[in-house]
Amino acid sequence: MEPDPLSQHSGSLMRRLNIVVVQRDFPVGDVAGNAERVISALGEAAALEPDLVVFPELTLTGYPPEDLLYRRGFLRRCDQALVEVVDAVRGTDALIGHPLARDGRLYNAVSWAREGRVIGRYAKQALPNYAVFDEKRYFEPGREALTVEVGGVRVGVLICEDIWEELPALRAAEDGCELIVVPNASPYHLDKRARREAALTERANDSGKPIIYGNLVGGQDELVFDGRSFAAEPGGRLIGPTPAYADGLFAFEYSREGVRALNWEPDGPENPLAVIYQTLVRGTRDYVLKNGFEKVLLGLSGGIDSALTLAVAVDALGAEHVKAVMLPSRHTSDLSLELARAQARLLDVEVETISIEPTYRAFLKSLGLGGQDPGVSGENLQARCRGAALMARSNASGAMVLTTGNKSELAVGYCTLYGDMCGGYAPIKDCVKTRVYQLAEYRNTLSPAIPAGVIERPPTAELAPNQVDQDSLPPYDVLDEILARYVERDESVEDIVAAGFDPDTVHRVARLVQLNEYKRRQSAPGIRITPRAFGRDRRYPISNRWLP
Amino acid sequence: MEPDPLSQHSGSLMRRLNIVVVQRDFPVGDVAGNAERVISALGEAAALEPDLVVFPELTLTGYPPEDLLYRRGFLRRCDQALVEVVDAVRGTDALIGHPLARDGRLYNAVSWAREGRVIGRYAKQALPNYAVFDEKRYFEPGREALTVEVGGVRVGVLICEDIWEELPALRAAEDGCELIVVPNASPYHLDKRARREAALTERANDSGKPIIYGNLVGGQDELVFDGRSFAAEPGGRLIGPTPAYADGLFAFEYSREGVRALNWEPDGPENPLAVIYQTLVRGTRDYVLKNGFEKVLLGLSGGIDSALTLAVAVDALGAEHVKAVMLPSRHTSDLSLELARAQARLLDVEVETISIEPTYRAFLKSLGLGGQDPGVSGENLQARCRGAALMARSNASGAMVLTTGNKSELAVGYCTLYGDMCGGYAPIKDCVKTRVYQLAEYRNTLSPAIPAGVIERPPTAELAPNQVDQDSLPPYDVLDEILARYVERDESVEDIVAAGFDPDTVHRVARLVQLNEYKRRQSAPGIRITPRAFGRDRRYPISNRWLP
Repeated sequence: MEPDPLSQHSGSLMRRLNIVVVQRDFPVGDVAGNAERVISALGEAAALEPDLVVFPELTLTGYPPEDLLYRRGFLRRCDQALVEVVDAVRGTDALIGHPLARDGRLYNAVSWAREGRVIGRYAKQALPNYAVFDEKRYFEPGREALTVEVGGVRVGVLICEDIWEELPALRAAEDGCELIVVPNASPYHLDKRARREAALTERANDSGKPIIYGNLVGGQDELVFDGRSFAAEPGGRLIGPTPAYADGLFAFEYSREGVRALNWEPDGPENPLAVIYQTLVRGTRDYVLKNGFEKVLLGLSGGIDSALTLAVAVDALGAEHVKAVMLPSRHTSDLSLELARAQARLLDVEVETISIEPTYRAFLKSLGLGGQDPGVSGENLQARCRGAALMARSNASGAMVLTTGNKSELAVGYCTLYGDMCGGYAPIKDCVKTRVYQLAEYRNTLSPAIPAGVIERPPTAELAPNQVDQDSLPPYDVLDEILARYVERDESVEDIVAAGFDPDTVHRVARLVQLNEYKRRQSAPGIRITPRAFGRDRRYPISNRWLP
Repeated sequence: MEPDPLSQHSGSLMRRLNIVVVQRDFPVGDVAGNAERVISALGEAAALEPDLVVFPELTLTGYPPEDLLYRRGFLRRCDQALVEVVDAVRGTDALIGHPLARDGRLYNAVSWAREGRVIGRYAKQALPNYAVFDEKRYFEPGREALTVEVGGVRVGVLICEDIWEELPALRAAEDGCELIVVPNASPYHLDKRARREAALTERANDSGKPIIYGNLVGGQDELVFDGRSFAAEPGGRLIGPTPAYADGLFAFEYSREGVRALNWEPDGPENPLAVIYQTLVRGTRDYVLKNGFEKVLLGLSGGIDSALTLAVAVDALGAEHVKAVMLPSRHTSDLSLELARAQARLLDVEVETISIEPTYRAFLKSLGLGGQDPGVSGENLQARCRGAALMARSNASGAMVLTTGNKSELAVGYCTLYGDMCGGYAPIKDCVKTRVYQLAEYRNTLSPAIPAGVIERPPTAELAPNQVDQDSLPPYDVLDEILARYVERDESVEDIVAAGFDPDTVHRVARLVQLNEYKRRQSAPGIRITPRAFGRDRRYPISNRWLP
């Protein structure tokens, strides 16, 4: 259908579209609440005089709703909520995301609402079913473009993954749009901003149309959605992004001259460590609060992992909602106690000391291990005495335990199941040890949070006399590079050896990664910051005879 | 292509095909070993004078290989293994399953081998991506039928999910086959045999062709493949199945008169409890052995869950590879101790007693809880003292801890994380409490294994004075029915109330199921026996505000 000449002409006077992107959190499962959030945002947006308000992908369910989508009762509630929110759309158009059941099939859809009516529907064509995504488990792909005229401009619609493939933007352009808008639920990982910018630029170039990209913000289990909505024009000009994790309403003006930011300042070049740190803070805050907790506690050892986790927790929830527990044993050095106390003072965090010696001794006696060197059993027992003590404090106080393990140790199993792995959430689960140090140093550039002594001392589990991690593990810079290649990039042992790493070390690390799958399977969820975390994006068999 | 008249004529003399189904375990990841298994089975099959030997789906990788399929090194090894096994195919044809990479895409394929060459290839058309299956994560669907003439008979090929849809069998028939063979990797769940028989009969009727269905046996993490290969003819006649969990080579003779069992007796009607019990035994044995363990240990409480788990463990591994640990506290009754000892004697299992009183008391003191009633904190601490003691024995002895929780308690969170949930594997994880009783009674019909007193006493966690489960939970027959509806069949709270259940109880149960997702996420893997276990087939958000 060609636009009629009259509307094109009148358009020449008023062909400036104000598109307001609602970059906010829409919590998973909160259908009634999300309907209220939509209605409230429409009210706030009125001050910006929008032509179109764009909500994130699957606005009403939150993202990803996972197997809630199998529940007919849940889908019924979404249908009701859609009626409520569409009725509230007055004086502007709005794009609202929701599951759409039709003829026994389910679609990942958006409804285009105007003056209390749905005037167009679009179903996502490209369904991601890789990494953390399982959309083919639930949805059928859409097949058709949607173009709607608003303020004299024909606007095409895509959803999220659609812009990572070639065809949907081309179909939208063929359908006669002049501009494309894309609601998203795109989680953060390293380099994600650059990848999004490259993809959107490519789509804008392919289709010859500017594209406005609106994204969700907020943490959902292991995913953290970073917002950073932006626009791309054919030729490569980028508008934005909005600052990472900014909750708000961001207006993009479209005219034939291009797209511009109306009520916000585009963010500068990315500081990767800053964005990772923000991701940890946002993910931790949202997981804790969304699960009904107000407070957290953690075991503070005087080492780098718990020190960074403590800083994240304080930045996420405020010092008054965080408690540190020191759990010394016979192997705990004075240095550890001093550094832990120093950090607690620095961050103004309440600290309690519970010696694990009496319980550890009681275990050794009960188990008949008192007279001998209990070896690894004894190391694990110490960790489990700590875990049980933390969980008891959690039960009594209603504070969630944060577990402090990093990706390097979880990869090779340098951690104790039901011991230091106890906890509801693992903020630094996807940060390798070398990155933990970088993040600690980055955090200290904002304000003093982690004592220099914590950063400078050699890492140690302090489960045996004079133990340091490097007794059991390769140096962390070597280990972390092998892990990046083996776990994150699926390189084979042969490839890694060919890249110059010691063959024995590579074999040993790969074998440890495989043998410790059972531990990771019982680990707490934690924040994903890489394209391959130990979470829903890495699905390995436990029973597995593949020896790499 | 039409068969040529000569081969059809010569066929009239020898058109009896002997199709040997290799119903065995092909462990995941063991590419080199699986190649040896293929070569060895071909050698054994020679005595049966087969025309075609059918191996299970994805023979070389085992099923499901999961993200191993993302590793180029793994796929390279599969290609090498395929060359080795094809070279060993002499004097018979063989169908071997493997991943097939072509033009940057991966297919779930079989190669038809004859005299050291691949003479045909088929790629699975229907890719399951629901329940426990994620095949669209890895594979592209095939589009074409494969028909190969062997012994004058044109034989079509499908793979597993292909027979659950309508089109692939029709395409095979259109392609001119006279008979269809189907390699499978189909895991057990309740009623699976009846569902398979119905599906295969429907496909045989649709296509007008007899179908021979060969399946894998063996446990792979939470899945247990039950074998039970069989055939269906148009008109509804079934041949088989082979007995559940029978490892072996099963010959099916095809002629124009029909299909018949050559070297085996078809199994009778299914006894569902018997097959569930066999599933628990096979799953436990394979998980333990495949993960490099020879022995298991478990906490024996005198209650029904640990009693059934002990019986399963003994049947799986032999009494000499099983150790029971009694972990009494101040709340443990004499009855519990007597019943636990009686069962250990009955099954001739080594039993050790470790009182948790000293460690529990040490914790209460360290935590400053000595003078007060520690409530739930204290109950959890007792469970964690037990868990740590079991894990210490596991560390020292190299025995895997089996955890003894059932599906009812895992559903509503009536269990302690890092306490009774400690363990590497959970044999009865998918058995609701009422089914645990049924299975105990079934097991006793084989030989005395579980003392009557264990079955008759009221269930109790014995974590507080005179505690019984029914203080905190609805009666198990009510709870289990609500769980079947809410968890397994996705019925809404309203639907369940409409079916006559007490509204408060239904709401409470549904809420508990939701709130305890975090515990299940850190639970040990266990054996799936229903179409909806708490495993890879139920993917729920933890952060979830949907209040059913």
